[in-house]
Amino acid sequence: MSPAIHPALAKLPAPRCSFTSDNSAAAHPSVMAAMLAANNGHALAYGADPWSEQTQQGFKQMFGADSEAFLVWGGSGANVMALVSLLQAGECVVCSDQAHIAVAETGAPERALGAKLLLLPSVAGKIHPEQVAALGRTLGSQHHPQPGILSLTQATEMGTVYSAAELKALCQAAHQLGMRVHLDGARIANACAALGGTLEALRSISLDAGVDVLCFGGTKAGLIGGEALIYFHTEHARRAKYVRKQVNQLPSKMRYVAAQFNALLEDELWLTLAAHANRMAQRLYLATRDIAGLQYAQAPITNGLFPTLPAACIAPLAAWCHFWEWDSSQSQVRWMTAWDTSEADVDHFAAGVRALLQHYTENGNAL
Amino acid sequence: MSPAIHPALAKLPAPRCSFTSDNSAAAHPSVMAAMLAANNGHALAYGADPWSEQTQQGFKQMFGADSEAFLVWGGSGANVMALVSLLQAGECVVCSDQAHIAVAETGAPERALGAKLLLLPSVAGKIHPEQVAALGRTLGSQHHPQPGILSLTQATEMGTVYSAAELKALCQAAHQLGMRVHLDGARIANACAALGGTLEALRSISLDAGVDVLCFGGTKAGLIGGEALIYFHTEHARRAKYVRKQVNQLPSKMRYVAAQFNALLEDELWLTLAAHANRMAQRLYLATRDIAGLQYAQAPITNGLFPTLPAACIAPLAAWCHFWEWDSSQSQVRWMTAWDTSEADVDHFAAGVRALLQHYTENGNAL
Amino acid sequence: MSPAIHPALAKLPAPRCSFTSDNSAAAHPSVMAAMLAANNGHALAYGADPWSEQTQQGFKQMFGADSEAFLVWGGSGANVMALVSLLQAGECVVCSDQAHIAVAETGAPERALGAKLLLLPSVAGKIHPEQVAALGRTLGSQHHPQPGILSLTQATEMGTVYSAAELKALCQAAHQLGMRVHLDGARIANACAALGGTLEALRSISLDAGVDVLCFGGTKAGLIGGEALIYFHTEHARRAKYVRKQVNQLPSKMRYVAAQFNALLEDELWLTLAAHANRMAQRLYLATRDIAGLQYAQAPITNGLFPTLPAACIAPLAAWCHFWEWDSSQSQVRWMTAWDTSEADVDHFAAGVRALLQHYTENGNAL
Amino acid sequence: MSPAIHPALAKLPAPRCSFTSDNSAAAHPSVMAAMLAANNGHALAYGADPWSEQTQQGFKQMFGADSEAFLVWGGSGANVMALVSLLQAGECVVCSDQAHIAVAETGAPERALGAKLLLLPSVAGKIHPEQVAALGRTLGSQHHPQPGILSLTQATEMGTVYSAAELKALCQAAHQLGMRVHLDGARIANACAALGGTLEALRSISLDAGVDVLCFGGTKAGLIGGEALIYFHTEHARRAKYVRKQVNQLPSKMRYVAAQFNALLEDELWLTLAAHANRMAQRLYLATRDIAGLQYAQAPITNGLFPTLPAACIAPLAAWCHFWEWDSSQSQVRWMTAWDTSEADVDHFAAGVRALLQHYTENGNAL
Repeated sequence: MSPAIHPALAKLPAPRCSFTSDNSAAAHPSVMAAMLAANNGHALAYGADPWSEQTQQGFKQMFGADSEAFLVWGGSGANVMALVSLLQAGECVVCSDQAHIAVAETGAPERALGAKLLLLPSVAGKIHPEQVAALGRTLGSQHHPQPGILSLTQATEMGTVYSAAELKALCQAAHQLGMRVHLDGARIANACAALGGTLEALRSISLDAGVDVLCFGGTKAGLIGGEALIYFHTEHARRAKYVRKQVNQLPSKMRYVAAQFNALLEDELWLTLAAHANRMAQRLYLATRDIAGLQYAQAPITNGLFPTLPAACIAPLAAWCHFWEWDSSQSQVRWMTAWDTSEADVDHFAAGVRALLQHYTENGNAL
Repeated sequence: MSPAIHPALAKLPAPRCSFTSDNSAAAHPSVMAAMLAANNGHALAYGADPWSEQTQQGFKQMFGADSEAFLVWGGSGANVMALVSLLQAGECVVCSDQAHIAVAETGAPERALGAKLLLLPSVAGKIHPEQVAALGRTLGSQHHPQPGILSLTQATEMGTVYSAAELKALCQAAHQLGMRVHLDGARIANACAALGGTLEALRSISLDAGVDVLCFGGTKAGLIGGEALIYFHTEHARRAKYVRKQVNQLPSKMRYVAAQFNALLEDELWLTLAAHANRMAQRLYLATRDIAGLQYAQAPITNGLFPTLPAACIAPLAAWCHFWEWDSSQSQVRWMTAWDTSEADVDHFAAGVRALLQHYTENGNAL
Repeated sequence: MSPAIHPALAKLPAPRCSFTSDNSAAAHPSVMAAMLAANNGHALAYGADPWSEQTQQGFKQMFGADSEAFLVWGGSGANVMALVSLLQAGECVVCSDQAHIAVAETGAPERALGAKLLLLPSVAGKIHPEQVAALGRTLGSQHHPQPGILSLTQATEMGTVYSAAELKALCQAAHQLGMRVHLDGARIANACAALGGTLEALRSISLDAGVDVLCFGGTKAGLIGGEALIYFHTEHARRAKYVRKQVNQLPSKMRYVAAQFNALLEDELWLTLAAHANRMAQRLYLATRDIAGLQYAQAPITNGLFPTLPAACIAPLAAWCHFWEWDSSQSQVRWMTAWDTSEADVDHFAAGVRALLQHYTENGNAL
Repeated sequence: MSPAIHPALAKLPAPRCSFTSDNSAAAHPSVMAAMLAANNGHALAYGADPWSEQTQQGFKQMFGADSEAFLVWGGSGANVMALVSLLQAGECVVCSDQAHIAVAETGAPERALGAKLLLLPSVAGKIHPEQVAALGRTLGSQHHPQPGILSLTQATEMGTVYSAAELKALCQAAHQLGMRVHLDGARIANACAALGGTLEALRSISLDAGVDVLCFGGTKAGLIGGEALIYFHTEHARRAKYVRKQVNQLPSKMRYVAAQFNALLEDELWLTLAAHANRMAQRLYLATRDIAGLQYAQAPITNGLFPTLPAACIAPLAAWCHFWEWDSSQSQVRWMTAWDTSEADVDHFAAGVRALLQHYTENGNAL
């Protein structure tokens, strides 16, 4: 049933892994081991267990005693929970037109919020403080929902990052309008690794920048499944536990999510893994940027590459080693590396890309 | 910090497990093993993986080729997904006043549905076809939401079960009003074990009774976490995959949920485990029913017992071996057994109950 | 097409008006005159007109400078607007099981709120402070929506009223749990007339009792259509204008709603009309209470009567002079008087009731 | 408190009417007279009255026996009711980025729907069938809400109109994706007048074009307040009456809305009034297009003009005779004519515009 592999690729060994997404990766062995260790006798459900308490303390050490972490199932759910808990009646959520909450969650935020997402045009997935400030023009008008939450993504859906200063300016613009700030950090680990790779760097792009609530991504960082929603201010967390259940994000046997996070936080495994994934993206970039017919708008900053390829090459290449098209109108694709992408995986994939495009070029731009 | 254990109990060894809930239990070793085995290399996310395909086939073998299974994170989420996918504008959901969706999900159904839950008075957690038929009185009235979905629970929140004939009559009454029928089967395994313990029994209380969509509970049946929502009719499943994402119930690394279910379905492990839990409830009943001061309204049918105790005894007993109060106005408690409750656990707990109540009685109804 | 009139009634002249509801009444001539006067040239929409400003000032004189009035289309809309503007995420609305918002608005509150209405059992449409205080048992439990708003009705759907002291106790119980209090005053004029008939009485059952937001009913009080939602505290009104539009309750040509209210407030016309309606209910009670076969549980307090009749008499009587059944299981009906019910209307209707029931009794309890 | 009038304008008499919006106009005398006539005795509420029956028949004569009309309070409410009654779970609403539902209803659609509005870029308020067809790319993807309803506006918010052929092509593109089509006709009368001014023209841009549900605007067409939502297919109307109440759009004393519509439909008064308003817009265009400093992108088609003016002139002009800015970044304003705008009103306003801009130009582009 699988499509035949193109001859130019068929002579290469079948790839061991794909460049589809960081959620195609497996879970890290330490995470699995923690899971196994937690599978031991009875434990109270819904977070009243020692593993969950340890996770809570782990995040408090990272973000201060005022922070409160809430473990949830998934990334969309974490985002929705954050928005529901902080939006007021009559308000809207403001985000980039590339935001995951806007374009890849099947309307889940609108379903739970009953509120509008107002989309700002973005460049490379990023928006600017002036765009936020301009929202002030509808303040007080009863015909417009009032700007309530600014939702940002770090790293963005385009693999770019906001610097700490950029985030600070965005948060400031939002706070000046009375808005709260949500940071979708499904790939916060990759962003942190790209921006210094320290706890200080992490704080500089979240708590210290003025972010009010952070989705600290676990699934794409090496877990089986699980995200942590971290409120930096006690008053914002007041309704969080009720909202978590209300949006179906309360794991009953929570110890198993907590155990995964405990493994991820230990010795900053999350940073180690993210830094590796970022390096693999760099390696893939260096190994492919000179290939004729392939173009990058810029070097990768985190773990995603967005090259353009000859349109005819995309399907054969993906049939050999899977990845997604990103923007078919531009023949743009997305290649994601993950914590478990090896140097050999990268080199092998790069060889395949080179082989196919070379064949294409030598064949008079045909396959 | 823990409260001191009452002297009458302190002389007994500390209990190995609690009688809090079946979601306090660990995951079955086979489930864990399947999880480990699935942690192997890359796999496409969101269900496009071989493990998920196997689960789909497993349920089709149980419920026929027309059925479609959708894996989700949790029980509340499964219920909400079922209701959202089947309710029409202008309608309400009808359920018992003890239903989990009505009293233990923090308004999650209303949040996602934007619709009313109409509660019918219940006896021992059960409602009757006449109550459903009586809803016909508001048919066509623009001042009342129209009855859209009948939501039943099997086994009920009170540990009771509907017979196949009872369910059939309820489904018939609902269908005559144009309603669809949802079955919350967080403990469908326990109900099935109590009603024959065969696949035929399972079908007789779901598909064959006229149920339209079944939440097949996994978490309380021995998993780490995961539920399967099974639509019995293709046309009802048409919107399911969009709704799953919309209510935050789409696991990205779905193979890990699927692998758990594959272990649970293999050799009907779900039935074996549920039958054991039910037997442990019987054993606990038999070991305690003669204790002075303790009363049962009836023998357990599945894995929950709801005795009344002297009010003064509840806290000391729960401090020694945890369980929840059920109805404090009646000094009624709930004791749940699970797949991993052993005969020794039961006997030990029964001995503690006997010791404390004996002390209480001999002490002139004081502790 | 109309059903034949029973011979015992056919000999009486056809009634001039019905006892269906106070919303079957016409609009008061002063209201109509004000409407006509307002139909004069251009005026800014959405409330930026002199008529709306006058209404605002009128209510401020009644309820103090801190109060803010928002004109809306209808009663259900006013209630929904009040609830949406004051409910927080994770909370529920608490009300009597007879509340209009619970049983006669087709789920409109749930649609707009995405939240649960928790129903308290009522006696004669009234609930008690102890029931509110008992909600404290779920405070802090993540499995239960937190009590957010107490919604009361005055006069109640059963025509009864809360005394100022009763309302004060209910508000106090609610505020002690951190709840806000909404008063559905679709018939607040009738309640006020029954409780003293002064502005002081009005304040004593709203602002002074601790109510936070009042729906001041206009439609049933003599208008063509229109209600006023009055917030007593500035901070509660902050989101009101956005929510009004969000729940489709912002009249564009608002001067026409305002003009009606200006007529209603002038010289306390609302009180005069409500007192008259109440008196007509008394008159009907006195004129019928001795009729064999007819029973009242109590004398009317406002403008509704809820007698029980021989079941066989209900349809023939309603075919002659329309009214609604209230509880068919008890042969209970509802007779409503209105501002435009005359003494002759009452006497004529009473004569009809007497004629039919006399015929029924004399005929061996048959028609 | 009013700002001083600029000397160049102060020498002109104060204007009798504004060019703010067609909802600043009064109600037509025939509408008022009908209202007065309806204010006569008791009538059953919620549409069970002879006036409402007459309106129903009136619309059936216009749109055929299969059509069903539902009277509602306002335009936003009519739109929301249409969308709620026709959207399915998992779907989104598609509309232009200028659509009233998207930019001027404070998120009311999202509040009631719990669903996303997907905005298509528009030119002069209009979108194209190719944009609709392109939505097919997300069909079947669980990460995207499925296109459910195409919502169009006629006349558009920019005063432009879709031809019958354009509408037909849009409806066809939508139906090919399984979508339903909603037409926001707050100004359908003006569009009809511009496109032939006959009943046939009306049907050609609604029923015959493939529209499924039409909001037939009354308020801007000369009423006090009221809109009619007309379903062209019985199966789409099945849930309409429940949804009307659910979104707070059921007038209790409905005779007063119906009486207004009966006056509007009689002798096609709606067309006469709209044609007049359109003519007044033409007259204003002709009287002002040669003024130095003022520019029109195109001649008006219906009753709105969108000229650009020197920025400094906007506020002084609006202080003298009110209108709204449309796009301050371009110094673009909106001038709306209404059924009650007279030729003298237009000529007077044009004289004022000319006087101020002349002064501005002669003064070296200063005031």
